Amino acid sequence: MPDTVTSLLDEIAAIGIDSARGGYTRPVYSTPELDLRSWFLAHAQARGLDVETDRNGIIWAWSGGVGGGAVVTGSHLDSVPGGGAYDGPLGVASALVAFDLLAQRRVAGRRAIAVFPEEEGSRFGIACLGSRLLTGAIDPDRARTLTDADGTTFADAGRGAGIDPAHIGPDPDALARIGTFIELHVEQGRGLVDLGRPVAVASSILGHGRWRISFTGTGNHAGTTLMTDRADPMVAAARLVVEVQRLARTVRDARATVGRIVPIPGGTNVIASRVDLWLDVRHHDDTVTHLLVHEIGQAARAAALAEGCTATLTEESFSKTVDFDPLLRDELSAALGDAPVLPTGAGHDAGILKNHVSTAMLFVRNPTGVSHSPAETVENADAEAGAIALAAGLQALLAAG
Amino acid sequence: MPDTVTSLLDEIAAIGIDSARGGYTRPVYSTPELDLRSWFLAHAQARGLDVETDRNGIIWAWSGGVGGGAVVTGSHLDSVPGGGAYDGPLGVASALVAFDLLAQRRVAGRRAIAVFPEEEGSRFGIACLGSRLLTGAIDPDRARTLTDADGTTFADAGRGAGIDPAHIGPDPDALARIGTFIELHVEQGRGLVDLGRPVAVASSILGHGRWRISFTGTGNHAGTTLMTDRADPMVAAARLVVEVQRLARTVRDARATVGRIVPIPGGTNVIASRVDLWLDVRHHDDTVTHLLVHEIGQAARAAALAEGCTATLTEESFSKTVDFDPLLRDELSAALGDAPVLPTGAGHDAGILKNHVSTAMLFVRNPTGVSHSPAETVENADAEAGAIALAAGLQALLAAG
Repeated sequence: MPDTVTSLLDEIAAIGIDSARGGYTRPVYSTPELDLRSWFLAHAQARGLDVETDRNGIIWAWSGGVGGGAVVTGSHLDSVPGGGAYDGPLGVASALVAFDLLAQRRVAGRRAIAVFPEEEGSRFGIACLGSRLLTGAIDPDRARTLTDADGTTFADAGRGAGIDPAHIGPDPDALARIGTFIELHVEQGRGLVDLGRPVAVASSILGHGRWRISFTGTGNHAGTTLMTDRADPMVAAARLVVEVQRLARTVRDARATVGRIVPIPGGTNVIASRVDLWLDVRHHDDTVTHLLVHEIGQAARAAALAEGCTATLTEESFSKTVDFDPLLRDELSAALGDAPVLPTGAGHDAGILKNHVSTAMLFVRNPTGVSHSPAETVENADAEAGAIALAAGLQALLAAG
Repeated sequence: MPDTVTSLLDEIAAIGIDSARGGYTRPVYSTPELDLRSWFLAHAQARGLDVETDRNGIIWAWSGGVGGGAVVTGSHLDSVPGGGAYDGPLGVASALVAFDLLAQRRVAGRRAIAVFPEEEGSRFGIACLGSRLLTGAIDPDRARTLTDADGTTFADAGRGAGIDPAHIGPDPDALARIGTFIELHVEQGRGLVDLGRPVAVASSILGHGRWRISFTGTGNHAGTTLMTDRADPMVAAARLVVEVQRLARTVRDARATVGRIVPIPGGTNVIASRVDLWLDVRHHDDTVTHLLVHEIGQAARAAALAEGCTATLTEESFSKTVDFDPLLRDELSAALGDAPVLPTGAGHDAGILKNHVSTAMLFVRNPTGVSHSPAETVENADAEAGAIALAAGLQALLAAG
C-alpha cells in the first residue's frame, strides 16, 4: 500500500497532543517537533532522497541530485499552542506523496522537499524564523538571543537539536539552489468552502507584524491598596484591548488581535506591576497597517495615562504584503484545471522566500475555515486531491525548467 | 552574638530570589520554601524546642512541653510570585527572637511557634490552606485535587515534601493545643507610617474571596479571521476588567482586583478560545462583598454577550470579615504601651484560627506601605521592636494563663 496524505498524518496523530488546550502543541525543537523531524527524515530516506539539515535547521530532501535551479516544495512541522493537525504537516505529507507520484511517472529533474523550523514563531516570537535566517531577513545575533517563555534562548534550543548557533544566518548558497518554491497549506479561511472547490492557488499574503506593548504601574497588595491609590497596569491593558478592537473595526479588511497577555507577577492577590501584551495586525496595504499600529500606540499611551501607568510599544517583526509571482500563479492555476486564486491573511515561509525566488502557494479546503485551533480540519479526499495538485504543479514546473 | 530579626532574615536573603520579577518567589513545597522550612527547623532545634511537622504540613516548635492551652505564635514562609522579604518570614524570625527573650527572662509556660504552609494561596489558589485544613475550613478531598500552574496536585506536592496526602484534614487534637494565637506580620499599608509608630495591634481583617471568571469564545487564526467574524474572549475579558474597576469605585472601601489572566491557547497569532481571569474582592461588610461580586458577574455576562462569548463565575474561596477578640486586643495594646489598633485588608492564618481560638495580630511598620512586591520593606530598628513587642505580648498571655 503506497502512503497517502491521510496515512502519513495518521502516523503522527499521537505526537504532541495537548490535553489541556486540545489539539497539538509542537514548539520548534521541543520533543514533539524533533519527533516529527525524525519521522520526516525516515520517510525521506526510505524514498532514497538525499537528506541534509542545513546550518539554519532547515531539512532538505533531494531527488535528482543536490544543486541549483531545483523545484522545491515543503512546509513546517512546528505548531502554535493548541493548534490543528494540518497547519504545516499537511504540506510536508503532501510533498512526500507528490514526490511518490512523480517517481511513479518517472518524471526527471532536480527537486527537493524543505522543512522549515519555527514557522509559527510560537516559541521564540518571530514567525518564519528559519526562512528569515536563510534569506538574511533577521540578524543572526538577534535570533540567537531570542528567548522562549522558560527563558531558554534560541541558541540553546538549537544546540539541543544539533544545530551550532554560531553558524546560523544568511546562506546564499542554499538559497541559490531554489529555482522555484511551492508551499501547499491548509486554507485558513472559508474561501474554498464558499467556492465548492478543493484546491486554490494563492494570490497574496497580507502584510502583518507583531508588536509588544508593555504597561508599567505599581505592584501592590490587592487587599490593602485602596482603589484610589492604585496605578494598575492590568486596567490600562484592558482599556487598550477594547480599543484595539474598536480601532481595527474602523479600517476595512484590517485584523488586529491580542492573543497573549502576561501580567507580572501574576498572583491573584497582587496588583500587577507590569503587564505585557502582544499585538498582531494585518492588512493588504502596509501603510494602513503602520497607521493602525500608530493609532494603537497612541491609544496605549492614553490608556496608561488614565491609570497612572506608562506604556511602551516595540515592533518585534513585520512582513510586507506579498503578491506572489503572477506568471507562476497563472501557470499553476491552468495546470490545476483553472483552480481558483485566493489571498490569505496568514504568513508563510513562502512569503519570506518570495523576495528571493519565484514562489507560489496552494491551499487545500478547510471545512470549518478555522485554523490555529483544534477545530481546523481537512477531509481525506481533499488532502489527497491537494497532493495530486501539488504533483501536477511540480511536474509542470519541472517540465518548464 | 544572639540572633536578631535582621540577622535571621539576612540568613535567608539569598533563598528564592526571583531575578525576572524582582523580590522572592517561594511557592509552598518548592525548593526555596523547603529550604526555608529546613532553616527554621535548624533554628528551633538549636534552641532545644520540641519540633514536629503535623499531618497538614504545619511545623510546630514547642517550649515547656507539647500539650493543651499553649500560647502560640508564628506565620508562614511561602510567598506570592515576586513578593517581598518580610511577608511571612518576619513573623517567623520575630517568633524565634521573642522565644529567646522569654528564655533569657526565664518566663515559664507552654508555648509554641507554628509555621503554616500555603498561606498565600499563590501555588494552589486557596490562601491559608494549612490553617483551613487544620480547622476543617476546606474539604481535604478538594485540597488534594487542587493543581498548580504546571498541573501538579497539592497531594503530589505534599508527598514530595514528606506529607502523606491521605492524612490531611481536620485535626481537632492539634487545634485544641492552641490556647491563644498571636501572629506578627509586616503591615500591608501605611497606617503605622501615618501614625509615626513602629507596632500596632490588629482590630479586624476585611472579608475577602477569590473568584474565577472564564470567558469562552471561538479560537481562530489572527490573520485570516475578519473582525466581524470573531467571538474573541480576550475582548470580553478586557471589557470586564475595566468594569471591575468602575464597579469597585462605586462602593466605599471596596477593593476589587484582577491580577492574573490566562488566555488559552495564548499564542500571539491566535484568537483565544478561552480566557480565565481571577478576581480578588474585599470589603469589611461581607454582604457588600457578595453584592459587588454579583454585579461583577452580571457585568461578565454582559461583556461576554457583547462579544458573542459566554461567561462563568466560580467562587474559589471566601473568608468572612474577622473581628479579633476585643479583650485580647485591648490587653495586648496595653501591654505594648498603648499600641495603636488598626484594621487590615490582607488575609492571614490568624483570621482562619479566630473562628476556633482566641486570636490576635501585631503589625510592624512598612515605610513604603507596599506589600506583595519587592518594594515591601521594614527598618531594622522596627523589626527588633516588633520582636520585643511580640515577647511582651506572649509574656503577658503566659502570665495571664
